[in-house]
Amino acid sequence: MENAKTVKQSQVETRDIVHPSDVNAYNFVFGGHLTSLLDKAACIAACTHSRRKVTTVSIDNVRFFKPATVGTILTIKASVNRAFNTSMEIGVKVLGIDPQVSWQPQIICHAYMTFVALDENGRPTPIPSIIPETEDEIRRYEEAGIRREAKKKLATALENK
Amino acid sequence: MENAKTVKQSQVETRDIVHPSDVNAYNFVFGGHLTSLLDKAACIAACTHSRRKVTTVSIDNVRFFKPATVGTILTIKASVNRAFNTSMEIGVKVLGIDPQVSWQPQIICHAYMTFVALDENGRPTPIPSIIPETEDEIRRYEEAGIRREAKKKLATALENK
Amino acid sequence: MENAKTVKQSQVETRDIVHPSDVNAYNFVFGGHLTSLLDKAACIAACTHSRRKVTTVSIDNVRFFKPATVGTILTIKASVNRAFNTSMEIGVKVLGIDPQVSWQPQIICHAYMTFVALDENGRPTPIPSIIPETEDEIRRYEEAGIRREAKKKLATALENK
Amino acid sequence: MENAKTVKQSQVETRDIVHPSDVNAYNFVFGGHLTSLLDKAACIAACTHSRRKVTTVSIDNVRFFKPATVGTILTIKASVNRAFNTSMEIGVKVLGIDPQVSWQPQIICHAYMTFVALDENGRPTPIPSIIPETEDEIRRYEEAGIRREAKKKLATALENK
Amino acid sequence: MENAKTVKQSQVETRDIVHPSDVNAYNFVFGGHLTSLLDKAACIAACTHSRRKVTTVSIDNVRFFKPATVGTILTIKASVNRAFNTSMEIGVKVLGIDPQVSWQPQIICHAYMTFVALDENGRPTPIPSIIPETEDEIRRYEEAGIRREAKKKLATALENK
Amino acid sequence: MENAKTVKQSQVETRDIVHPSDVNAYNFVFGGHLTSLLDKAACIAACTHSRRKVTTVSIDNVRFFKPATVGTILTIKASVNRAFNTSMEIGVKVLGIDPQVSWQPQIICHAYMTFVALDENGRPTPIPSIIPETEDEIRRYEEAGIRREAKKKLATALENK
Repeated sequence: MENAKTVKQSQVETRDIVHPSDVNAYNFVFGGHLTSLLDKAACIAACTHSRRKVTTVSIDNVRFFKPATVGTILTIKASVNRAFNTSMEIGVKVLGIDPQVSWQPQIICHAYMTFVALDENGRPTPIPSIIPETEDEIRRYEEAGIRREAKKKLATALENK
Repeated sequence: MENAKTVKQSQVETRDIVHPSDVNAYNFVFGGHLTSLLDKAACIAACTHSRRKVTTVSIDNVRFFKPATVGTILTIKASVNRAFNTSMEIGVKVLGIDPQVSWQPQIICHAYMTFVALDENGRPTPIPSIIPETEDEIRRYEEAGIRREAKKKLATALENK
Repeated sequence: MENAKTVKQSQVETRDIVHPSDVNAYNFVFGGHLTSLLDKAACIAACTHSRRKVTTVSIDNVRFFKPATVGTILTIKASVNRAFNTSMEIGVKVLGIDPQVSWQPQIICHAYMTFVALDENGRPTPIPSIIPETEDEIRRYEEAGIRREAKKKLATALENK
Repeated sequence: MENAKTVKQSQVETRDIVHPSDVNAYNFVFGGHLTSLLDKAACIAACTHSRRKVTTVSIDNVRFFKPATVGTILTIKASVNRAFNTSMEIGVKVLGIDPQVSWQPQIICHAYMTFVALDENGRPTPIPSIIPETEDEIRRYEEAGIRREAKKKLATALENK
Repeated sequence: MENAKTVKQSQVETRDIVHPSDVNAYNFVFGGHLTSLLDKAACIAACTHSRRKVTTVSIDNVRFFKPATVGTILTIKASVNRAFNTSMEIGVKVLGIDPQVSWQPQIICHAYMTFVALDENGRPTPIPSIIPETEDEIRRYEEAGIRREAKKKLATALENK
Repeated sequence: MENAKTVKQSQVETRDIVHPSDVNAYNFVFGGHLTSLLDKAACIAACTHSRRKVTTVSIDNVRFFKPATVGTILTIKASVNRAFNTSMEIGVKVLGIDPQVSWQPQIICHAYMTFVALDENGRPTPIPSIIPETEDEIRRYEEAGIRREAKKKLATALENK
């Protein structure tokens, strides 16, 4: 297996402006549009870390904090929180600046996406592990483990119900 | 508060065919496109149950089981699993038939979306409760409670870390 | 030829919400967007009935009754009215609920689309006939014949002009 | 009522190239995309003739002659065939050139769309009549009358059934 | 090399109506949408003149004169100003009519695009030269040469800086 | 007038993956799609520097170096090269990584866009000047002046022709 990599080596930041074609019937950015932005950013991070074809296997804890209106400048940040054997958790966050209101960024939404790396035959394949460096990166690394455990517990709870 | 309603009164079924404009770089249906379909179906269910403007506050446990290719006929099913005070959990499921392969539907993905109903001033407002009738509906009603508890526990675990 | 099938076996119902990206310059749902919805629903019905690749050969009697605005919840219904030798008439109808006004569905538009089933070489191929069961299904079955006759008469009238 | 106008004064010709985002699951141009092109061209013709807001009330005799593939150069032609009191029949035709095959244009589809002109309050309002000049324009003018009669006869036949 | 051709033989005119899905956050037609329209029209002209696959190598002097709002009827005009050995300059112009204001067309933007024709192996290949006929065509032919010289001078100025 | 700002304070980097819906008939990223990405990135930079509504007035020297195929990971970089009185030149560059070929970024295209800042009444309004800091920023600052001069000379040459 390839050597471990830092979070920074695959971190992705991308931007967008909310256009009228991106909003829902209430004139707030459409959830499907936001998820497209999250999905693309997370996919680039997963792909860059693993240097493999990747596929989304799950999305968890998507939280929408504040609806974004037309004209909002969005910043989407994605980073690999932790790599397991063939899968990795990508944390994604969307910040928004509404220039009509304030240049102070507001949190719009966040999510945790799990991608699996695939070999030439489309089968899961091992990926480099992650070296968390900053305090934030270490916290996210640990939280990724807690979320993974919670998912397993929930699956058991639902089965044994 | 308005009287309780059955699950059937707001159940939504919708369909789509995967076109080349809906796929990602690997020729599988793009996650962002699938989520748009889920979001619209869930939103119609939430809106029909509450007869209110609604807003997505969270999405959980999105699982992708099988990538769908161009030509796949999709069936999206959404139903209100449980109504809490001002919020409701909507279960959404996507089934796919690839006519080139078999007319047996395959599960493509599922998700649980939480919507809040809003009054005229955009503030959360109480909604009718849900009457689960079939065995499946009762199971989903109970599981919605388990998921809600698990979310709270996870939030606590992450805070106390 | 395969056995006849009922209308119900291939009936399609699908849903949509009108977003700002779906409307024309007057803020009414764009005709091209509506027809996309009709086309997809009818195509799924034709495909499900014939279990073949299908292609649209004609669309007739498209009537727009009421313009739909942003936020309208659309229900698109498609069913095989009648199967001829290699072609079938699909009736499609769009109903709309504008939650700002009333939860009573209004008819938005309807149309009759003719699809031909194709074999592996792209040539027209026989399809199962239709068994109309309800009163409505029988009426639509008969009307499909009347429309077919009217089309032939019109073609003759235009030629002999 | 304003003076009559010639067909040429409102004739519309528009062009497009079929991109991968415009095709259906069989890699042929999607019916919904073609109808969007027809609808926009016809709307410009109706608007230019009447100098009013216009709305589509019906589409008839849409015939698809030949599926267009990616790379096909489309020419869409729309002209007002005849003006009645507040409505007008627009004939629309799509020709396609597939440069991989031949530079000889092939007919892809045609349709007849009926638009109504609207006054400031959204009510039908009289429009200028049409002066057909060429032999083709006179033929289309007469055929528009025949189609109108046929539609009425069909409506009666369906009612008296 | 094939014989020269006139400008008229490849001239393209196309139309569009600005829909809410085409505008930016200020409700003016989005630059990216306008450029899509310019690109398609210019590509059809280049392709028709050369009867070859073509690729855009540069765009110059794009000027936006007036923002177009929803409902504006656009006319896009493209013509081959001059053919060099394997490349050609296409002039493109967008005119807009806002029926709410006046039926007098206003210039919205113009641009000069350079396309190269490609042979079967994707390598630049010679194209027919252009015969300018009208005064306007001759002026544009000469200006294309001046622009080409100016581009070379600018490149030298930037290198020798 | 507000104080000068550094280039870094408004620099924008954004990312995208080329999907099948973004390519033209030759399966290369569509020029119109690329320009949409350039336009959004440049607009965010102009808006961030000026803290004003901005409008594109011109695009110059767009060069396409290498066609990008489906699956290419794009990085779009935009920075304010120089601010004049009410206008600013934004340099934009697109780099592409095709993971099937190499993780070495290739230059796809670049362009220079001029934006004007607008006050509440939509009239041009002064903006902060730019402080170029690095060698590259100083070079781009000087080149922006050379390009501005060249544009004026070309305009004169075309007038005096």
